Amino acid sequence: MNLVLFRDDDFISQDQVRISGRRFEHLMKVNRIKVGDQLLCGHLNRKKGRAEVLETTSDHVVMRAVLDIDPPEPLPLTLVLALPRPKMLRRIILDVTTIGVKDVYLVNSWRVEKSYWQTPHLSCETLEKQMILGLEQSCDTIMPKVHQRRFFSQFVNEELPGICEGSLCLTAHPKSIKAFPHAVNEPCVLAIGPEGGFIDREIETFEKIGFKTYQAGQRILRVETAVPFLISRLYV
Amino acid sequence: MNLVLFRDDDFISQDQVRISGRRFEHLMKVNRIKVGDQLLCGHLNRKKGRAEVLETTSDHVVMRAVLDIDPPEPLPLTLVLALPRPKMLRRIILDVTTIGVKDVYLVNSWRVEKSYWQTPHLSCETLEKQMILGLEQSCDTIMPKVHQRRFFSQFVNEELPGICEGSLCLTAHPKSIKAFPHAVNEPCVLAIGPEGGFIDREIETFEKIGFKTYQAGQRILRVETAVPFLISRLYV
Repeated sequence: MNLVLFRDDDFISQDQVRISGRRFEHLMKVNRIKVGDQLLCGHLNRKKGRAEVLETTSDHVVMRAVLDIDPPEPLPLTLVLALPRPKMLRRIILDVTTIGVKDVYLVNSWRVEKSYWQTPHLSCETLEKQMILGLEQSCDTIMPKVHQRRFFSQFVNEELPGICEGSLCLTAHPKSIKAFPHAVNEPCVLAIGPEGGFIDREIETFEKIGFKTYQAGQRILRVETAVPFLISRLYV
Repeated sequence: MNLVLFRDDDFISQDQVRISGRRFEHLMKVNRIKVGDQLLCGHLNRKKGRAEVLETTSDHVVMRAVLDIDPPEPLPLTLVLALPRPKMLRRIILDVTTIGVKDVYLVNSWRVEKSYWQTPHLSCETLEKQMILGLEQSCDTIMPKVHQRRFFSQFVNEELPGICEGSLCLTAHPKSIKAFPHAVNEPCVLAIGPEGGFIDREIETFEKIGFKTYQAGQRILRVETAVPFLISRLYV
């Protein structure tokens, strides 16, 4: 935990918080905090800063916080991701949160197994838990938004054009011969397919609304590797 | 399995192979192969090509292979990696294999827990298993080399200068203000620290032998995210 993230109901006064549960356990066992320590902290969806440990008991810790620093700038990137295997979904959500992505659309695709949509990992609670871990890791406070879209064509044809306005729109496919660009440093919408890739018809659907298709090397990456690999290229 | 990888002892004649065990199970259950199918295949550390399924039985499959295509070019990158948590080690070795890294030095560092060096995941068999999975994923045939170096100073001062000759040498640290470069497209040696980062003295040791220290954004990434994130930046 590189940053202790406070929620509204942790505050017991204007500048004091009381932390129990998972964060308390972690602070005591891993960070090994004691009275007087200064910790990096942040208020969910607000500013970050420093907190001083005032009191530790057997089940909670009280801190005084000064929160006057803006969280890091979000990446100007919307990720459109074919719903990954449940096992991988949690990891990818944590990863994209640490990288600074704030908008993720989980979409259906020909090669997404129907059963993936039934996973409990898609519940708001589980997704939120992973995002909190990602914010704690990356010292950020702004919770990403994860949207679920079960109808590929409807989403791409009706909703995605609006999302794409003013953005560079990219997808990756091994068949393209154009190299995936580096350091574009502008708002992007990046679509990443499932294991096995988007099918040709899906790529055409993206291209019809203005997406450009690139390739990122001769090797076929796992989705969980491709996500940080591709996003990293786009920004300095 | 995007590519079926043959070993020397799979060959029953000049151009025929007999596959059993894990690869056989996977080919039957996941790829659902049948006689006459054409599959991507490769010979470990040699060429790749196509194989035709000649026969399937309850415990093996026989294929005829034509192996006349060079494997993809290796990345001209040597990765120096502080030994990660055992749980993550396997995944990182698989990941770097899919990305095309062929030389990995696992090194000690101040923040590497001593116990990590005791993990069975460091055995040649386990590492090789992960690298085979990585090659099968990325359609490559050339096995990476993983070297283990338990003495940081000795490695960096005595061995690393020779490895670095003719290469751009980089490491990442949040304290640097120089942005991590994009698309350098030349031989590189990249050093990635443990959770919590290399300590200042270690960064100085790297810098003394010619490494430059860069930062890759304000956010602190997990090591397993940082590895594909940083490597991807260096090459088109």
